[in-house]
Amino acid sequence: MDASRRRFLERSIALLGVSGLVARASKEAGAFEPPAVPPWMTSPGAGFNEYGVPSKHESKVTRTLIRSQPGTTGSGAARTPLEALDGTITPSGLHFERSHSGVPDIDPNQHRLLVHGMVKRPLIFTVDALLRYPMVSRVHFMECAGNSQLLYQPTAPNLTAGQTHGLVSCSEWTGVPLRLLLEEASVEPGAQWILAEGADAAAMSRSIPMAKAMDDAMLALFQNGERLRPENGYPVRLFLPGWEGNMSVKWLRRLKVVPAPIMTKDETSRYTDLQADGTSLMFTYPMNVKSVITRPSHGLTLEGAGLYQISGIAWSGAGTITKVEVSPDAGRTWTAAPLRAPGLPRALTRFRWPWRWDGRASVLKSRATDDTGAVQPERDTFIADHGNNAIFHYNAIQAWSVATNGEVKHVYA
Amino acid sequence: MDASRRRFLERSIALLGVSGLVARASKEAGAFEPPAVPPWMTSPGAGFNEYGVPSKHESKVTRTLIRSQPGTTGSGAARTPLEALDGTITPSGLHFERSHSGVPDIDPNQHRLLVHGMVKRPLIFTVDALLRYPMVSRVHFMECAGNSQLLYQPTAPNLTAGQTHGLVSCSEWTGVPLRLLLEEASVEPGAQWILAEGADAAAMSRSIPMAKAMDDAMLALFQNGERLRPENGYPVRLFLPGWEGNMSVKWLRRLKVVPAPIMTKDETSRYTDLQADGTSLMFTYPMNVKSVITRPSHGLTLEGAGLYQISGIAWSGAGTITKVEVSPDAGRTWTAAPLRAPGLPRALTRFRWPWRWDGRASVLKSRATDDTGAVQPERDTFIADHGNNAIFHYNAIQAWSVATNGEVKHVYA
Repeated sequence: MDASRRRFLERSIALLGVSGLVARASKEAGAFEPPAVPPWMTSPGAGFNEYGVPSKHESKVTRTLIRSQPGTTGSGAARTPLEALDGTITPSGLHFERSHSGVPDIDPNQHRLLVHGMVKRPLIFTVDALLRYPMVSRVHFMECAGNSQLLYQPTAPNLTAGQTHGLVSCSEWTGVPLRLLLEEASVEPGAQWILAEGADAAAMSRSIPMAKAMDDAMLALFQNGERLRPENGYPVRLFLPGWEGNMSVKWLRRLKVVPAPIMTKDETSRYTDLQADGTSLMFTYPMNVKSVITRPSHGLTLEGAGLYQISGIAWSGAGTITKVEVSPDAGRTWTAAPLRAPGLPRALTRFRWPWRWDGRASVLKSRATDDTGAVQPERDTFIADHGNNAIFHYNAIQAWSVATNGEVKHVYA
Repeated sequence: MDASRRRFLERSIALLGVSGLVARASKEAGAFEPPAVPPWMTSPGAGFNEYGVPSKHESKVTRTLIRSQPGTTGSGAARTPLEALDGTITPSGLHFERSHSGVPDIDPNQHRLLVHGMVKRPLIFTVDALLRYPMVSRVHFMECAGNSQLLYQPTAPNLTAGQTHGLVSCSEWTGVPLRLLLEEASVEPGAQWILAEGADAAAMSRSIPMAKAMDDAMLALFQNGERLRPENGYPVRLFLPGWEGNMSVKWLRRLKVVPAPIMTKDETSRYTDLQADGTSLMFTYPMNVKSVITRPSHGLTLEGAGLYQISGIAWSGAGTITKVEVSPDAGRTWTAAPLRAPGLPRALTRFRWPWRWDGRASVLKSRATDDTGAVQPERDTFIADHGNNAIFHYNAIQAWSVATNGEVKHVYA
């Protein structure tokens, strides 16, 4: 345990004292009386299963779906229920999904990856060939460019943390560094970009700068230890750490080395940011520094004044989270929250902060800083800079109000 | 990317050259011809689901079951298929399970945790109360004391890596430091042990030294981001990092603070190690330094001479893995394999090493060292020290033979 974590716990213990949670726990049974032997100890339990699933008592912890094209089945997104999770890894069954034309049913034995264009040796890979290549494993978040897009609207929507921020998830990704394949194909001089194309019916396509491809890009084959899930690109996806999720093209079938960006439909009509002045930003690749308090958050109710642990996640596509500050008073005062060690670059970082609620109306906020010095902006500043027309790359500070009756709601504050 | 990882990749690229994998990939289509558009790009794919599952093409990647008490349904174990996985996180659906009388169907609203015995303030906690406490998140392996127990037998069994070593898994665990609850209950002088009891029909019970309880023990509530799976102790389990799995009592219902070990059935008739001289070791808590090559391993077949990436996992209950050496010649020569950074204490550590197979009969081994200086022993040495009577704490070096036809088998060598 690192020193800052230990100091945090010591402080938490001091705060617990003998009231608040302690009283709640010890007084529950009135005069002390050990609990009776529960019924599930009186007969043998259930047998083994080959692939486990969550408890039936957690059946409400699911992804929430948004279908963006009425009349289609596979165009939309499914969001991670952040308010029900803790830690930094997202279970693969709850990893967010954004698909443009559904999840293709790919036979891994028939799937091929083509590397062509401005290369000396065009190559075709089977999945089995890729599986023999040197691999790396790294924990990284993935965030959809459109995460939190509803927060561009003028009125704070009545939505949970998962519904506002659940197009971000974090996994341990394992795959082949893209650099290895490009060096093997031998890229020709003047080749500065790569077209990446997916094997779905939308043929999702993006242009990738060569510098990113030669840096930390990988062809991901495993997610949280097992092979990729179908909705996350099985049998192989591109993975570009820290960049907007749609560029990490799923079901990857083609990498064409080219001199300039291709200007595909997915980088012109989509994934550009219309600004207040009518111009559009495009090629806005890295996801900005961002955080959100996941507990307490909209939809939860506090059970009276007392000690609560504020818990949340922070991330930055530019690097490592170095600081998360929490405010219990709508941003008038801020305190740095301890961060879980080790802090990993381009990964979700969990922060936790003990808060003694006095029972009065409060507004909770969190503000993240990364190792480039970038600081998450207040919403007013963000909207003043970007306007209300954009859809993507929203990263302003999120506020939750706590009413005197304990109800927690999403507010702009 | 750290320097050692980069050097490893550079070396791998140099080894790839223009033969081996390169030829295999580029010659597949004969004269170069791009693959046709596959059928799954010609119509929209499947829609969204609320909780995802693996691809149907990976349906053989399951836990393998061992029922230790014929006629019962829930006494035995389910092993992680290590040979099909990569990275260091085990997906929760494939985390190993060892249960003594099945998985109890616990109502989390009815579950209680009792802290009593030598304490000034006996306490009863609901699950909701525990969820309000300060939490920590840490990545740790868990290993059953009986992992690899079949390797005590004189003849090498025909078993895969998962079947020999699959009672080890690794997750991000999130929970409440046990120390907080004990300080709140106020432990009395002279209390040196804690009885931990599970709410299953076996009332699984172990005595835990107070020093461990006050160090890094936690009450785990989340596993890989979501609430614990039923077979891993839902709604709450004890978690003792690095120690034999059975002590991390699942479905935890009682912690009784006591002056001396209780000598429960589970620490006298079980979980003791009968030695060659007829005496038994007991209270052998930490799992020893250990490693296993997961690819290639028993049951896989190499497709001819060429470059292969050897990949495996190493771990130690005493601390952090500092070195894993790989031998391609049954232990005559050893080379240190690069380790994935960051190396975390009491967590699975992935090692990878490029191996150019010349097509001749070979024997692959791996040997782990931890930061206490402990080195994984050869099997001959291990058996000479411990005899063939024991069941638990087997940690000898594992050997896989590669025949000239590419078949990989488990051997004692």
